[in-house]
Amino acid sequence: MARTLSSVEDYKELVDRYDTWLFDCDGVIWEGDHVIGKAGDTLQYLRKQGKRIFFVTNNATKSRASNKGKFDKMGIECKVDEIFTSAYASAAYLKTVLKFPADKKVYVIGEKGIEDELDAVGIQHSGGTNPDDNVFIDLMDFSSITADSSVGAVLCGLDMHMNYKKFAKAFRYLRENEGCHFMATNLDSTFPTHGTVHPGGGATVAPLSCALGREPLVVGKPEAPMLESIIEMHHLDKSKMIMVGDRLNTDIAFGNQGGIATLMVLTGIDKREEFEKEGAVARPTYVVDALGDMAALAQ
Amino acid sequence: MARTLSSVEDYKELVDRYDTWLFDCDGVIWEGDHVIGKAGDTLQYLRKQGKRIFFVTNNATKSRASNKGKFDKMGIECKVDEIFTSAYASAAYLKTVLKFPADKKVYVIGEKGIEDELDAVGIQHSGGTNPDDNVFIDLMDFSSITADSSVGAVLCGLDMHMNYKKFAKAFRYLRENEGCHFMATNLDSTFPTHGTVHPGGGATVAPLSCALGREPLVVGKPEAPMLESIIEMHHLDKSKMIMVGDRLNTDIAFGNQGGIATLMVLTGIDKREEFEKEGAVARPTYVVDALGDMAALAQ
Repeated sequence: MARTLSSVEDYKELVDRYDTWLFDCDGVIWEGDHVIGKAGDTLQYLRKQGKRIFFVTNNATKSRASNKGKFDKMGIECKVDEIFTSAYASAAYLKTVLKFPADKKVYVIGEKGIEDELDAVGIQHSGGTNPDDNVFIDLMDFSSITADSSVGAVLCGLDMHMNYKKFAKAFRYLRENEGCHFMATNLDSTFPTHGTVHPGGGATVAPLSCALGREPLVVGKPEAPMLESIIEMHHLDKSKMIMVGDRLNTDIAFGNQGGIATLMVLTGIDKREEFEKEGAVARPTYVVDALGDMAALAQ
Repeated sequence: MARTLSSVEDYKELVDRYDTWLFDCDGVIWEGDHVIGKAGDTLQYLRKQGKRIFFVTNNATKSRASNKGKFDKMGIECKVDEIFTSAYASAAYLKTVLKFPADKKVYVIGEKGIEDELDAVGIQHSGGTNPDDNVFIDLMDFSSITADSSVGAVLCGLDMHMNYKKFAKAFRYLRENEGCHFMATNLDSTFPTHGTVHPGGGATVAPLSCALGREPLVVGKPEAPMLESIIEMHHLDKSKMIMVGDRLNTDIAFGNQGGIATLMVLTGIDKREEFEKEGAVARPTYVVDALGDMAALAQ
């Protein structure tokens, strides 16, 4: 049963217990273009207490540097190294967990955000924004779908340049190259923007999953690899970590599956009845109405 | 238990029993560029006996007229009206079964084969090969993803020009337009060509299924709509119909699910042990080694 926190004593106990705080942003820290309540003050308080802070997002289209721009604009303190996008986590996972060989390359179906992060960790890649792969092939013209034994992984993320050539090439590598990893930054079916939703990262990997008849290793929330990457890179202690989020099926499930504590805020997608009902997809350890409520600690 | 036919008497009994013969082509009539044994002679014999013949293929990229070209090249007699592609069946299903309104249009994610068949039955369409929809949109530029309340169905088939703009538009129509039908010509995960396989029609519809969280109505084998269209258009008697094919999970399942008899030939994909084993995906009514064996009737 989730424990609801509502007093300064409750907040104090929570802050004392956890050293490393992971945050989802949308619906927790901000909504659209405005900060939610005193969320910024709570973050500042945690920093003053010497807590480690990470921002964890499934968005794989932008590099961490681009993501930092949003924090700057919102007036929220943030270092690039504190941002974990599913693109960065994918690169980190390939590098640190899979020990991806230096002479192999990753075939990318995705945007520049993924390429930037692979570059940052020194992993070679093809596909992605390469103009040769961002074209339409003629019906039944497979002349450009050639073998490439140097491809050791296919990594898919939201790609507004997704096309048949990329899928046919990736499919060939995955069928022919022994041990070729099949990975996705995230499987979000849609993503919200401008008051509506559009097909998300899951839609980009779906054609390959269908053709192959199997599912990719998923790096982003709610799957485990992103958390494993953060822990591996920063040598963290799971018992001292807490994930803060507004969505049960991504943020809270991410913490549950990864074996760390979770704090649910009610300023975003999911409401209290969602996790209190029978058969809830995930259950938070703690609940607070809004992240900004904890700013009372600073007074 | 499938009954194996091997004598002229067996063949004669079969021919006497069924008036309407549906044929899969690849692996039954031809393989690549050559006719399999005396399959052509068997077809000629059936015609002489006054049988109705239909050729049933999941290929949705070519019109029936284009498909006839292959028959002509192989020296197999065939009329355009005898060819049922999943594109033609989709158009026929929209027209005759769904009574698709004349003032609505179908948004196509697919090749010219689908557009030609919609034209043939007088159904309006957009998307498809329209140059405006065969482009890549810039990252997060949704300015061209506008509403269109005149779209009453989205029809997906193998599309080598599949792209994010088409999926985002189709997704919007399916979410916003009440009663908008979500259809796929077929869900083949791959298709064989030139000794290898590439992502098939199922891969083209997968992004939409993922984004929507639901599956389309599938017209092609092994689903029922293609058979319903054939029966509806030609006023056929199911008890007098037989489907001839080489694949259990498409051809034979198609006959099983549609409630018509099936004849399995062993010149293609599946072998005898596939349907004799426990838990077989489908079971043929009759089996013959090769369609050409029945040409003995003509002697």
